[in-house]
Amino acid sequence: MHHLVAQLTLEEKAALLSGASVWKTAAIERLGVEPALLSDGPHGLRFQEETGDHLGLNHSEPATAFPTAAATGSTWDPELLHEMGEALGRESRAFGVDVLLGPGVNIKRSPLCGRNFEYFSEDPVLAGELGAAWVNGVQSQGVGASLKHFAANNQETERMRVSAEVDERTLREIYLPAFEHTVKTANPATIMASYNKINGTYVTENTWLLEDVLRGEWGFKGYVVSDWGAVGNPARGVAGGTDLTMPAAGGHAEEVLEAVKAGDLDEAVLDRAVSRLLTVHDRLRAAQKPGVTVDHAAHHELARRVAAASSVLLANNGVLPLSATEGGAIAVIGEFARTPRFQGAGSSHIIPTQLERALDRIRAAAQREVTFSAGFRLDGTVDEALIAEAVAAAKAAGTVVLFLGLSDKEESEGFDREHLDLPPNQLALLEALAEVRDDVVVVLSNGSVVDLTPAIGRTGAILETWLGGQASGAATADVLFGTAEPGGRLAETVPLRLADNPSYVNWPGTPQQVHYGERIYVGYRWYDRTDKDVAFPFGFGLSYTTFAISDVAVSVADPAQAKAVVTATVTNTGERAGSEVVQVYVGDPSASADRPVRELKAFAKVTLEPGDRTVLTFELSERDFAFWADGWTVEPGDFVIEVGTSSRDIAATEIITLDVPVATVVLDTDSTVGDWLKHPQGAALLQEQVSKLGAGFASALFEDEEARVMIESMPLRSLLGFGTGVNGKAVVGELLTRL
Amino acid sequence: MHHLVAQLTLEEKAALLSGASVWKTAAIERLGVEPALLSDGPHGLRFQEETGDHLGLNHSEPATAFPTAAATGSTWDPELLHEMGEALGRESRAFGVDVLLGPGVNIKRSPLCGRNFEYFSEDPVLAGELGAAWVNGVQSQGVGASLKHFAANNQETERMRVSAEVDERTLREIYLPAFEHTVKTANPATIMASYNKINGTYVTENTWLLEDVLRGEWGFKGYVVSDWGAVGNPARGVAGGTDLTMPAAGGHAEEVLEAVKAGDLDEAVLDRAVSRLLTVHDRLRAAQKPGVTVDHAAHHELARRVAAASSVLLANNGVLPLSATEGGAIAVIGEFARTPRFQGAGSSHIIPTQLERALDRIRAAAQREVTFSAGFRLDGTVDEALIAEAVAAAKAAGTVVLFLGLSDKEESEGFDREHLDLPPNQLALLEALAEVRDDVVVVLSNGSVVDLTPAIGRTGAILETWLGGQASGAATADVLFGTAEPGGRLAETVPLRLADNPSYVNWPGTPQQVHYGERIYVGYRWYDRTDKDVAFPFGFGLSYTTFAISDVAVSVADPAQAKAVVTATVTNTGERAGSEVVQVYVGDPSASADRPVRELKAFAKVTLEPGDRTVLTFELSERDFAFWADGWTVEPGDFVIEVGTSSRDIAATEIITLDVPVATVVLDTDSTVGDWLKHPQGAALLQEQVSKLGAGFASALFEDEEARVMIESMPLRSLLGFGTGVNGKAVVGELLTRL
Repeated sequence: MHHLVAQLTLEEKAALLSGASVWKTAAIERLGVEPALLSDGPHGLRFQEETGDHLGLNHSEPATAFPTAAATGSTWDPELLHEMGEALGRESRAFGVDVLLGPGVNIKRSPLCGRNFEYFSEDPVLAGELGAAWVNGVQSQGVGASLKHFAANNQETERMRVSAEVDERTLREIYLPAFEHTVKTANPATIMASYNKINGTYVTENTWLLEDVLRGEWGFKGYVVSDWGAVGNPARGVAGGTDLTMPAAGGHAEEVLEAVKAGDLDEAVLDRAVSRLLTVHDRLRAAQKPGVTVDHAAHHELARRVAAASSVLLANNGVLPLSATEGGAIAVIGEFARTPRFQGAGSSHIIPTQLERALDRIRAAAQREVTFSAGFRLDGTVDEALIAEAVAAAKAAGTVVLFLGLSDKEESEGFDREHLDLPPNQLALLEALAEVRDDVVVVLSNGSVVDLTPAIGRTGAILETWLGGQASGAATADVLFGTAEPGGRLAETVPLRLADNPSYVNWPGTPQQVHYGERIYVGYRWYDRTDKDVAFPFGFGLSYTTFAISDVAVSVADPAQAKAVVTATVTNTGERAGSEVVQVYVGDPSASADRPVRELKAFAKVTLEPGDRTVLTFELSERDFAFWADGWTVEPGDFVIEVGTSSRDIAATEIITLDVPVATVVLDTDSTVGDWLKHPQGAALLQEQVSKLGAGFASALFEDEEARVMIESMPLRSLLGFGTGVNGKAVVGELLTRL
Repeated sequence: MHHLVAQLTLEEKAALLSGASVWKTAAIERLGVEPALLSDGPHGLRFQEETGDHLGLNHSEPATAFPTAAATGSTWDPELLHEMGEALGRESRAFGVDVLLGPGVNIKRSPLCGRNFEYFSEDPVLAGELGAAWVNGVQSQGVGASLKHFAANNQETERMRVSAEVDERTLREIYLPAFEHTVKTANPATIMASYNKINGTYVTENTWLLEDVLRGEWGFKGYVVSDWGAVGNPARGVAGGTDLTMPAAGGHAEEVLEAVKAGDLDEAVLDRAVSRLLTVHDRLRAAQKPGVTVDHAAHHELARRVAAASSVLLANNGVLPLSATEGGAIAVIGEFARTPRFQGAGSSHIIPTQLERALDRIRAAAQREVTFSAGFRLDGTVDEALIAEAVAAAKAAGTVVLFLGLSDKEESEGFDREHLDLPPNQLALLEALAEVRDDVVVVLSNGSVVDLTPAIGRTGAILETWLGGQASGAATADVLFGTAEPGGRLAETVPLRLADNPSYVNWPGTPQQVHYGERIYVGYRWYDRTDKDVAFPFGFGLSYTTFAISDVAVSVADPAQAKAVVTATVTNTGERAGSEVVQVYVGDPSASADRPVRELKAFAKVTLEPGDRTVLTFELSERDFAFWADGWTVEPGDFVIEVGTSSRDIAATEIITLDVPVATVVLDTDSTVGDWLKHPQGAALLQEQVSKLGAGFASALFEDEEARVMIESMPLRSLLGFGTGVNGKAVVGELLTRL
């Protein structure tokens, strides 16, 4: 318990539990309790003066706009995320910010989610590794992170009241692990309780999630802050484990006080929350160094490196990289080359310190003529004249680079998309250009996947740059001309069509409920399980060089323990330096529960010079083999270990056999005949009992194969009572005592 | 209350609530309460002497084996089902049976369900119409039906303890309506509570389902009987609404008595159950005529007619119907021609009064040479010699008829299939024959759909006869030679592959739970919504003649009422007499909830001579336009009315507009800004309140389109409190009082 708690009045405690303004916590001057300053992130600091909001509507101080999570998720590079986190921490400290609101480690359940650009991946291991690195980076500067949006906040539609109806196994295996990993390995100062309900209970009031799981099981040491405006019932929020309600919430303190006075809320719960707040703020301040200054130029260059490392080369018929000198004129087409889309819309929207335009950077890099045609209007209306001009420019040029993407109107925090299509005017432009040449280089700026089938097989290259931050224009030019490599790999599957995606028939639900009917089969887990073709698989991305994976081996020191070590050699077999992401997937085909065909459990990004090779080592722990069945469970049997460069490019497959102990079936009165037969002592007792009921019974049960299948599923009590006059329940009770 | 209840002792009442034996209820001799006799159905009477079981293992008296529900579902002919029900009723009466256990109106959620052969359809309207007709037929003879298995018992795997995790809307729209329709229109004497749990509660103990919905809402007047062995807790069963526990259950009466004496169970609940039992049995006896005799030959001929009407011609390149005289030798291939598979395995397995073999009937019908080759063994092992013999016979013949299907080993009550494939030895035979000729006529005997892709496009015809009862051999010959027409239409979609089916990733769940993650998108509702190709669509079936649908019109007398009348003309445009099933589908694309693209709401089977036409009239009621949203809801807007011959063969599409009253949004403290804006009085109050908070607030809310989308989803209380210091909840409370 924080030492000041005992000195605070009840009123002061209540006051500390909600904001004093949009961004500040309350101060208690008589005891020297300073306000803490929280500020929107997570791709750049959105620091606002006191008149601020949380909707991204009003002014904020300029800050470096780093690539969004859609982009950084594609880096598969925790070290780079750590470096970016350090920079964000420095910028936060320079404005006196104590807590930066991020990262967002929610799972991309549907490509339609308007806030996908703020989330890393459809995979919990990738999201967790990157989230933890970001947190460690930010917190190294004495700034607290706020891991968000906890949890199952996977859509914008009705986000403030919808209940995510999702079974515990799916929560445990898909929607919680990225939070769990970050909490356990990066100790975030705060975690943000999301707006939505889970299985009928608001997250802000969800004691199971906030106290039992987050603190009890994972050992969370920070405090829980509500998403802005998420708490509807202050007393239930505090009792549920939401320590701090933001922003300034009129009536919050009064309602909490009333509840305490009425005996509905224990003052000890207030003490607990206040202590957590004060303890975290003390810890942060102890780590904060004074006089932090920011080198904005250096941060811009970092943003540029991250953007290049985020760019995913999806297709390339050899047109990329471009020569700076050869090949005639370059026709740059598309308004986004001139008017960059580089960040998402909503609460993470910031004012960049500077902004690069790809057009300028291409002109600077090319010793070739560069023309520009807008090609389309950002308002989405088709302009045939612009298309005609672009087609003419394309015909006259040696190289065509076409910038397509989504605008803030098409995707944003606050609403979800309804389709995956690029705007019709851009599609018309693409169509017109594809008719006159087959080597167009398509560069995409968008926060979540779009339907790429209009471009696949009809263009020279497809480069997905996501929303790449303020330096994305420079980074794109770097990648196009090969001064940087396209370092990204897909952190989410690109489907062939919207209707193929796992949440399709359950999206976005009613204002009251959304059913997570696909359960654990999210992203590639769905496409692999249902054996569906995709446009581009999870983990995929081309390089300017080539790699080979060889000498894959899996060693198990002791089969009685669920541990393994995977080694693989990766060689740069091409002509250029470059990086590859080696991915390790685990499958458990013999499990008693249905499990995904493969699940990412480890990965490494390596950069190699031509001809160089390195040996990678991955350690697989018990958890990497486990599934959730009222607890993490590893069953003995064969496991499939795959090493590859995407969920569908598997270079090597190894089978290992684990001989871990079988969990003993616990028999009770509802246990089936099959359960009894599987039990070491139960089987003998069952035989003995059944033999008392006559030969017909015994033979049906133990000799007739077809009947046996049917009988095995019957509860033993039911079988024994079946027309025999025997009190099955009593007999089973007696047998249980003899076990 | 039945008049005898007051005279019964507590012990007598308790005794009446469970069976006296496997098939009989208890008698109370001193009051003249006779035992009632219940017996397995539903495709034929499985009457057993006292030593009986419920697993289909022991002997039963011979009875007519009518086609199974998989077959009769394909008739789309309620009148024929009624006629079959009458015959079943007569056979039951002849043995003194009071209650025949059937029909099974469960929805075919997955093609893998081992008991699908006992169920009619993937569509609740079709299942309900056929189930009601069957009940009315049986009950016309003074025999009670037992509508089963109520409810959400859609798999055999762990059927005795698994919990169907399914949301209420899905229950209301998909899994309950066939029961509801049958209860409301056919007044079944009993309904059978299934083994499984629904959302964690055993059906036998589920007061919501058995009392609130079944009796309270639907007005059920019969009694609830447990499936055999389904009651695990007698006191909770009786309290939950299970009036009769079957079979003789040792300890049942004692446990009920104990519960009453301990004050845990109200004696009034026993009175209620006993009264229901006695009332129903009295009603049945009053309708029973003495001295019923059965004309088994006539019933056999009825079974033959039903089987022909159940046969679905899926493909035909013109090879069918066969000439009785022309075309050279007929090579009949396949063990099933000699050893018919005509009924399912499990509790519905009966001893037929006679059994037709297709081979005999083909020989009798053909004035052509008929050869026979077994082609495969029923044990599934590949026998190359049999294949070679069949290939030789096929080469030598003018016509090849190949009988394929599943055996009892492949599908049965008690377990589910794991794939849709025909056995490998049959596939090898099909492959070998398809290599030597492209006009093989494939005749299928199976209880649920199989993967037909190995036959599609490579054979001359595909005739699906399902499990067609004891006369199916004769009926098949009738159809092959055209003395009967293939009258069936698919009551379930035939998918291209198992992984396409809606429950695929959620099947069959763990021993504890199965998630109905696809919700309302079952069968064609799924394939249509996700726009997936199928092998053969719901409702599909070829005829030996051709039909045209014309002059489709939809009239709405009063748009303020959700009622419409659809008329359509159907013409036999071919050269032969035949029947067609005209199907009416309704879609609601403008609904506020997600709804299937189309849902079957009405159908009619018509038989026409060549050149003849008839005008069909279908009445659509309010329910036909409604979806479940805490109650049946019809929203104003456009509805799509489609008339066709399958879910994918739509002959005409009409749009109607209903102007039914909009349900007023009820505002509360959790209502969003969007809800307030939609409310007639709320919008003005909101504007007034917001204007007090300053121009910035108002302009953000009412002028900025992008911000507005985000703000509309916020609860008003949350918006008002957003950093303004206003107690949003208090203000909203005040506004609510002014509405």
